[in-house]
Order: sequence, then structure tokens, then C-alpha cells
Amino acid sequence: MIQLYHCEGARSFRALWMLEELGAEYRLHMLPFPPRFRAPDYLEINPLGTIPYMIVNGAAMSESSAIAQYLADTHWEAGLSVAPSDLAYADYLNFLHMGEATLTFPQTRYFRYTMLEPPERRNPQVAEDYRRWFLKRLEAAMGMMRGRDHACGGRFTAADISVGYAIKFAEALGLGDDLPPAATEYFRRLEARPAYRRAVAAERGNAVE
Amino acid sequence: MIQLYHCEGARSFRALWMLEELGAEYRLHMLPFPPRFRAPDYLEINPLGTIPYMIVNGAAMSESSAIAQYLADTHWEAGLSVAPSDLAYADYLNFLHMGEATLTFPQTRYFRYTMLEPPERRNPQVAEDYRRWFLKRLEAAMGMMRGRDHACGGRFTAADISVGYAIKFAEALGLGDDLPPAATEYFRRLEARPAYRRAVAAERGNAVE
Repeated sequence: MIQLYHCEGARSFRALWMLEELGAEYRLHMLPFPPRFRAPDYLEINPLGTIPYMIVNGAAMSESSAIAQYLADTHWEAGLSVAPSDLAYADYLNFLHMGEATLTFPQTRYFRYTMLEPPERRNPQVAEDYRRWFLKRLEAAMGMMRGRDHACGGRFTAADISVGYAIKFAEALGLGDDLPPAATEYFRRLEARPAYRRAVAAERGNAVE
Repeated sequence: MIQLYHCEGARSFRALWMLEELGAEYRLHMLPFPPRFRAPDYLEINPLGTIPYMIVNGAAMSESSAIAQYLADTHWEAGLSVAPSDLAYADYLNFLHMGEATLTFPQTRYFRYTMLEPPERRNPQVAEDYRRWFLKRLEAAMGMMRGRDHACGGRFTAADISVGYAIKFAEALGLGDDLPPAATEYFRRLEARPAYRRAVAAERGNAVE
């Protein structure tokens, strides 16, 4: 069975959300954040102490958008991937990578330099650089979506999980009021999905019927 | 024909390297770095002013590792991709994403806070945080490769272009002496590839026989 190591609200949520979209069987291991300091036993499983960490078919995966893509491809029948022969494939891969590398990473820097570091190591200038950078790139991403309901292909795919989590994270960081309206509307549609709600319930230890 | 916008040595090198591996036809548009400030006309093509920017089959791609993956999949016969049915697929996707999101991004922060910012905005503490962070993650990546010649599947793939560029960038930033020996040896093998050398020659405006 698939094993997923996750912290509530962290980017490993992408993996959890995809598992719920697929109706896959998995075992969820919840960890306190940051696990590197607060769950020392976890270092025996993943020496870096980072999440996500997913064990599947004898392999270990640590990149949240790669996990979403992997699960979509290995559950092809669920229709959450895009084929290389599809005209939407370029957009699909671009949004899959963009969700993490371009849209989530600067937010982790904002988080670090406003909240995670001890006060003497916080840095408002660096945090503000990243806040503005993130918002500019999110606006560009929304421009590339051109008002469509989904990132690509006219339907929900793993790319929406990659980009959608970045918007979820922004709202959790208190940046909700700064977001372009198109991003907020897009995310409202995504979080209304039953699988999204099941994932939130699962990380909180509640069952959803 | 494929159009690629690129700055010498920047992460768009991944796209250029892959194009050379595939022997694909492309037109290379070289820009000064950073193009946002030094090539204002480019903002009419890509309003963010970021590179890479690749126009292919009517789509625009901006994520370097997504481009490497896309080109490998749409030139399947070249054998630089991995199929979802392959046991190496989890490693393939994980290294593809890791090369950019985990291994290149912290280096761009090191670059920014040691060199790119004007002196009064440089920040040795932040730069050093990122240098150490990068090196720790590169060491973990090398651990996941377990001494293999390539990232996955026992052969050269797009995943090696993603991870390999991160090591090239580290050497360009002067971090060569800090790298784990396994990373240096891995990269020496990669840069010996004829396509890698052709890509370096192409960005410098030289032809290689």
C-alpha cells in the first residue's frame, strides 16, 4: 500500500489530494511541522526530514508535483493526466512544474522570513521581495489560463492540483486579499471538489462520508 | 520551428541541451541577463521577462524542466524519456522536478543575495542559508542515485538534464569546491556528451563540427 508522510496544510497536500481524487488506497502518516525538528524518528525514514515523502511500488518520492503527476499517470483510467499526443500537453507540464517551482517556492521564503525564523533572523525586506514576486508570477499564470476553468485541456488534471495548492498556501499565509480575483475564483472551484474536502478531513483525522 | 529564448548559462540551458540531444531544429534567441532590464523589447514576447521561453506547436512554455520533459516525450524515438509503465518512472519524475524546484531554486537565491542585488541589498546571512541548504539537498539527491551513472533507468534521460544543470550552475557560482565528489563526477560525465558541448557552443554563437 502507498505510504504518505505529510504535515497538515503543507505541500504534501498535493499528494493527499490526488490520492483522494483517485480513490486510491493509502496509509497517511501525519507529522508535526517542521518534522526535521519535531519528529526526530522520521529522519530514519527520510534523512532530510522533508515532506512529502511517499513510498510507492518500492520507490521513494519527495517532490509534491512529481507525485501528483506520477499518481495521475499510473492511474490513467481516472483521466487526471494528459497524453503527450494531446495539444494540451505543453500547458499541462508547464503548469505542473510552475505550481511548485515558480508559485510555491517564493511563498516558502515569505513564510520563512516572516514567521518560521526566530525574530532576530526574520527579514521584512526579503519577505516583501518574495511576496511581490509570487503575486506577479501568479498573475502571469492566471493570464496563461486566460479565464479558463482549469489549467489546461478543459478539465481537471494534476496540473490543477499543482497550481491550486499554491493558492491554498497563499490564503493560509494571509495573502488572500492580495490575490488576483481570477486566482481566488479558480481556487474556490477547486476546493469545492469532494476529493479536496476528503483530503482536508483526512489530514485532520476526520472521516467524510 | 521551435523558438527558444535563452540567456547564456541560465536555466534555459536545459531546453537548449535537450534540443541538441534530440537533433531538433530550433531557432535560438540569445538575450542579455537579466532580460527584464536589459532587453525591454522581450517583454512584448514574454511580459514577465523570464527565461526560458519556448514557443512550440502554438504553445508557450516557461519552466525549464517541463520543457526538457516535453521535448523528450514528443521525440519519444530518441529514448530520453521514461514510460509510466517503467519501474524507473517514479525516480524519473522525482529527479525531473527536484533538479529545478529543490536544487536550482536555492542557488538562484544565493546568486541574488551575493551578486545580483546592489551591494546595500545583499545579505550574507540569507545567501549562506541557501548555500548550505542547496548542498544538503544535493548530497541527498546523490544518495538517492546510489552511485549510479545516471539519475534513473540505467541510461541518460531528461532527468539528467534537470539535475545536471543544477550542478553546472553551482560550478558557475563558484561552489564547485563545496560539491560532494559524486556530484562532480556525475557532472563530468554529463558535460562530456557531444550534445552538451554543442549546446555550449550554440549559446556562444560558435558552430561545433
